[in-house]
Amino acid sequence: MDTTETFHKKGGTDWSSPTQISPNTQYDDDSPVHPYHRGSQERRTSPKLNKARGRMGLHPNAPIDETHDLAPHQDLLWSRIRLALREPFAEFLGVFVLVLFGNGSVAQVLLSTGQKTAPGGNGFGEYQSISWGWGLGVMLGVYVAGDSGAYLNPAVTFANCYYRGLPWRRFPVYFIAQVLGGFVAAGVVYANYINAINALEGHGIRTVPPVATATAGIFCTYPQTFMTKASMFFSEFIASAILMLVIFALKDDTNNGVSMQGGGNWFPLGMFFLIFGIGACFGWETGYAINLARDFGPRLMSYILGYGNEVWSAGGYYFWIPMVAPFCGCMFGGFIYDLLVYTGPSPINTPWLGLKRFLKPGEAIKAVRQHEQRNKDEGVV
Amino acid sequence: MDTTETFHKKGGTDWSSPTQISPNTQYDDDSPVHPYHRGSQERRTSPKLNKARGRMGLHPNAPIDETHDLAPHQDLLWSRIRLALREPFAEFLGVFVLVLFGNGSVAQVLLSTGQKTAPGGNGFGEYQSISWGWGLGVMLGVYVAGDSGAYLNPAVTFANCYYRGLPWRRFPVYFIAQVLGGFVAAGVVYANYINAINALEGHGIRTVPPVATATAGIFCTYPQTFMTKASMFFSEFIASAILMLVIFALKDDTNNGVSMQGGGNWFPLGMFFLIFGIGACFGWETGYAINLARDFGPRLMSYILGYGNEVWSAGGYYFWIPMVAPFCGCMFGGFIYDLLVYTGPSPINTPWLGLKRFLKPGEAIKAVRQHEQRNKDEGVV
Amino acid sequence: MDTTETFHKKGGTDWSSPTQISPNTQYDDDSPVHPYHRGSQERRTSPKLNKARGRMGLHPNAPIDETHDLAPHQDLLWSRIRLALREPFAEFLGVFVLVLFGNGSVAQVLLSTGQKTAPGGNGFGEYQSISWGWGLGVMLGVYVAGDSGAYLNPAVTFANCYYRGLPWRRFPVYFIAQVLGGFVAAGVVYANYINAINALEGHGIRTVPPVATATAGIFCTYPQTFMTKASMFFSEFIASAILMLVIFALKDDTNNGVSMQGGGNWFPLGMFFLIFGIGACFGWETGYAINLARDFGPRLMSYILGYGNEVWSAGGYYFWIPMVAPFCGCMFGGFIYDLLVYTGPSPINTPWLGLKRFLKPGEAIKAVRQHEQRNKDEGVV
Amino acid sequence: MDTTETFHKKGGTDWSSPTQISPNTQYDDDSPVHPYHRGSQERRTSPKLNKARGRMGLHPNAPIDETHDLAPHQDLLWSRIRLALREPFAEFLGVFVLVLFGNGSVAQVLLSTGQKTAPGGNGFGEYQSISWGWGLGVMLGVYVAGDSGAYLNPAVTFANCYYRGLPWRRFPVYFIAQVLGGFVAAGVVYANYINAINALEGHGIRTVPPVATATAGIFCTYPQTFMTKASMFFSEFIASAILMLVIFALKDDTNNGVSMQGGGNWFPLGMFFLIFGIGACFGWETGYAINLARDFGPRLMSYILGYGNEVWSAGGYYFWIPMVAPFCGCMFGGFIYDLLVYTGPSPINTPWLGLKRFLKPGEAIKAVRQHEQRNKDEGVV
Repeated sequence: MDTTETFHKKGGTDWSSPTQISPNTQYDDDSPVHPYHRGSQERRTSPKLNKARGRMGLHPNAPIDETHDLAPHQDLLWSRIRLALREPFAEFLGVFVLVLFGNGSVAQVLLSTGQKTAPGGNGFGEYQSISWGWGLGVMLGVYVAGDSGAYLNPAVTFANCYYRGLPWRRFPVYFIAQVLGGFVAAGVVYANYINAINALEGHGIRTVPPVATATAGIFCTYPQTFMTKASMFFSEFIASAILMLVIFALKDDTNNGVSMQGGGNWFPLGMFFLIFGIGACFGWETGYAINLARDFGPRLMSYILGYGNEVWSAGGYYFWIPMVAPFCGCMFGGFIYDLLVYTGPSPINTPWLGLKRFLKPGEAIKAVRQHEQRNKDEGVV
Repeated sequence: MDTTETFHKKGGTDWSSPTQISPNTQYDDDSPVHPYHRGSQERRTSPKLNKARGRMGLHPNAPIDETHDLAPHQDLLWSRIRLALREPFAEFLGVFVLVLFGNGSVAQVLLSTGQKTAPGGNGFGEYQSISWGWGLGVMLGVYVAGDSGAYLNPAVTFANCYYRGLPWRRFPVYFIAQVLGGFVAAGVVYANYINAINALEGHGIRTVPPVATATAGIFCTYPQTFMTKASMFFSEFIASAILMLVIFALKDDTNNGVSMQGGGNWFPLGMFFLIFGIGACFGWETGYAINLARDFGPRLMSYILGYGNEVWSAGGYYFWIPMVAPFCGCMFGGFIYDLLVYTGPSPINTPWLGLKRFLKPGEAIKAVRQHEQRNKDEGVV
Repeated sequence: MDTTETFHKKGGTDWSSPTQISPNTQYDDDSPVHPYHRGSQERRTSPKLNKARGRMGLHPNAPIDETHDLAPHQDLLWSRIRLALREPFAEFLGVFVLVLFGNGSVAQVLLSTGQKTAPGGNGFGEYQSISWGWGLGVMLGVYVAGDSGAYLNPAVTFANCYYRGLPWRRFPVYFIAQVLGGFVAAGVVYANYINAINALEGHGIRTVPPVATATAGIFCTYPQTFMTKASMFFSEFIASAILMLVIFALKDDTNNGVSMQGGGNWFPLGMFFLIFGIGACFGWETGYAINLARDFGPRLMSYILGYGNEVWSAGGYYFWIPMVAPFCGCMFGGFIYDLLVYTGPSPINTPWLGLKRFLKPGEAIKAVRQHEQRNKDEGVV
Repeated sequence: MDTTETFHKKGGTDWSSPTQISPNTQYDDDSPVHPYHRGSQERRTSPKLNKARGRMGLHPNAPIDETHDLAPHQDLLWSRIRLALREPFAEFLGVFVLVLFGNGSVAQVLLSTGQKTAPGGNGFGEYQSISWGWGLGVMLGVYVAGDSGAYLNPAVTFANCYYRGLPWRRFPVYFIAQVLGGFVAAGVVYANYINAINALEGHGIRTVPPVATATAGIFCTYPQTFMTKASMFFSEFIASAILMLVIFALKDDTNNGVSMQGGGNWFPLGMFFLIFGIGACFGWETGYAINLARDFGPRLMSYILGYGNEVWSAGGYYFWIPMVAPFCGCMFGGFIYDLLVYTGPSPINTPWLGLKRFLKPGEAIKAVRQHEQRNKDEGVV
């Protein structure tokens, strides 16, 4: 089964004609012959563009439908910029959609709490609406951000770099795009709900939980007051671990539970249920941030919008936990999946469960350098 | 990638036999040879029918399954009328189903608010039921109205004309059918709930929010009282923008997030989640009309049914906002998607992001005229 | 496009090998050569079995997987009985599952209303749980009852006989099986909830709405007290019409909205959304029976279980409305779909929209007789 | 139709290249030639590994993607352990995910009941959240545990052994893995919610229903106080029966309702609706354990964590009912499905509905022995 066949399985993309370049092929920088070389017509995307992308850490070739690539309009300035920034734009827009729905759902439920004139007589939503909001936000974000792999979460990108061979040098540009997406979306939600926030808090007053009329919880997460620091960390850790474990399962087309169900097709819907579930089952104590981009981006925006230093100091300077814990949790969740299930290439499936590289760092660094040199020699970076 | 292949990708329709004519093929009026010419048997639909359709702005050939087209009953009068009005009928019925469920859900929740004899002891639904109602109404409407492209919304039709090459001359007949669908559905919902409306408001009394027992909100949207005009517009604008952005993503089969997931199959379910999400996250302030047909059609019906001039004057003559803002929002949402993601043919992918045509209108009009003349010469209109 | 291709489209059943006999092929009794004749090996199902099935109005050949049909155990007595009664068994079990979940959901919500010890502090469900119950009951019932076509509703069977050529002589045996399924399921739900019913009503006391502690509403529908007779009928009529209209759309694989979405696969899920929607939008006033089997079957059971004559007399002898209105509604809904959308064979697509047969009954009866005689000559009944 | 074709149907796995070994093929131990023999390259998994697996009752060949099997890292110690314990690991992780979400949803709803600072003003969830939690827990568990068949329930494994030819000797190792999964997951949920449990019950105080502040209900089920013993048993019995009946339907690709809908793909989502439905319709009286692993595993953990002997004695030593009733119920549900629908190989489709083996146990045992001897001769155990 060569790479081509793998892609056939994943979702029916026809690779017999080299239509699309996927940025997510495992270890794709290593493959000596790239699919696009098989095409007969010349692509528009020039070596210059490749170089610009390479510098950002992206695959030299932007993922683009071949017929679109051959169109004359790809020579236009903006088309070239869009190709150069294809994956960052996708991650930005994906997280934007995700946080727009997520923050929007919290805003609507929180601000309309108890409103008697609502149909049904009790506000425009309830806690469950928030599970819906984040769940379908991720689902629709995955559809929107398909060209970048739709990680939508720095911790998920990180675990894919470590466990699935996504090149590390892509992490920074993805990271920036993801945080920016959350940042901008929070601003849009604020603009949309500013009247209602004023009506609840008063003009110019902006407060942070546990103040009774606080609205900062619309944008980022604040822990319940009964929680200890260790429990806060654990709650984010375990939610992130289950997130990564299930994502790896849903993306593992050598797992019968996925391949026999036509897994690729079901990924976005599976993500809806996964995020809904984390919200319904592990969302109370710390607000299930499980994503730096979804928490830090909006937190920064709320700080700029005037919620004060309390956005950082609340909950005993809680803000760092949803930044750090998701990375630890996703690494652990990925570890569990690879330890118990995954039979493909993974650090876990190297000697000593991959720990050797930590014991002999010199050799590991050498191997990474060789890997990168090979890439350069082949002109893929 | 020729047109045939595009259709293969979209949802598996077998175009190797020229079974169906799609009214939505991009720029299809330009293609010199129409698929149906490849068929060996003669179609029943006569040149006369083509002419009648062309006058309404429709594609000269009605979309119809080839085997059905060859059946003798297509010569019957009504079959010919149905073919002539195929897309308007589909849009009518689609919006009818959409508004039937949407208005029905508001009616049930609003009129049964707080009823203690309900199972559960608190009415027959809650705000979330309304998200369900509109969401599944759109989903089922998309299934019903497949032969017309299932736009179900003038603003979505408009953005497809501008960004995706749907011929502009189809807009009017789609528009009329969509508004009529909403108009009639509102009447049916009124007839269904007339006893309950009488029980709540009193016989012959019909009021509009913010009156406490108002029932006009069943049919069309009225804004929350704390909203400023600018905020009302912004709320409808942003909800419409996100609507169009996600629809363009779900319909873009060069987007890996869609094509690798078998996007076509998932479109109606994706619409359910999208509309549910807009209702749960951006539905409070202005009632998420995001659709002239869904708001103006029922508003007109409620005016006729005796809700008085307040249906127009309420909220400071709010009624024009859900007519205008969706067009602005959908145009903006489409702009964002094409700017950041879409690599195919679009005004955004022409020099100066398509602004040149506004700076040199003479040339643009000339180009459109030439395009239309070509169509006429080829006999397709 | 021949029949084989149609079936390929519907859901991928491989008809190039004559694996399965579908009881739902349109006008299948007319086709001179039956698919099973193309098989090389001899089927186990004997002429005797065919005769028994024919007498019940069923297709002479039971729908059975070919490899199963060749197995020796098909000669066993029970296997032969099961084949003879294949479709009635399927309809029975489908309606059984449907009513089990439907009545069960009403029972749980109604009997636990307001229970403070529930997680969440307010009973074990709410009105929306009932929409879930009926919706997923129908969905799972459709999966279970696939071999009979999964009509699960006499009115839907009736409309399929009239509009889609399902032989009329199959109606009675389907009808009996469907009503029995609802009857038995109601008994099981009663047995399951007898303790809780006793706790609410008192031992030996069984009452019917609008008594405050009535539990008869678990089994069948009772209208709201403010309803007039005409409105009751209209409410059931319109809900049944929308049911049939959407089912015909979901089953119409010449409708682009379905065929391009791979409609067959999505039918059970589409039914979930349809039934959920009818419950959430048109379920309050009369309880959305829309199905004689779901209402009369359990009503009869509740009468036998001791709920008294009030199960018939309640609501001004309301019981006949959910028996009659669904037939009228389904006929009307089917009429609308065929009038505005359907281009295939249908009475609507005959001269004078099919009214000619009512004006010249002699000719129509003659045509039906000829049709049946042809069937006999060909040995299919 | 040979086995190869069956698998094509189930979910598109390409068996023309012998990529995967399914542990669930019916009677697969009997087939004289195993698919992997058709591969040209030699597999890494050695006879030694086969022997170890055989001793545990597993199929001698672990289910593994062929390309993965050929990778050098399969020679590593842990990779070999993982292959040896492939199905137990999968069942463990599947039940772990299932109970994590299930117990987590109960914990969140129960512990946050009535919290006024929640968005919406009334806690972080409601009873319906628990239906979601268990429903999506099973769905995601099925995805994770695909390589073992994803039974996730000893009673379901048992019924598959009896009715579907899953070898009985696999039952014990599956059983242990399933119970362990539930046991560990309950511990993780406890660790996650320990602060909140302390806040509700008080430090060091742990109580069992019907105590007002009891939290033992998070982990395992306790019946309603009005229930008689017989009713408790019946409630678990009927819920388990419907579980098994619908699973057999969803897994039966000779059932038109499944095969024409592409059943395999839909199985996990179907399970979501099934479990949600059981929770919404039959979940009140006894908490719908319907699964020894989901109830006994967490019950044991809660006992160890200090909930006292009441976890066993509560409800009149109720604990044995969710251990025994699911087996009876699943056997009955499977019986009903095979009696009324299933035409393939099943004990029901043997003389006297399979009762003969109970009347002539000597012959039955002899047949089983012969079957096992054949397996040994062919070297598959």
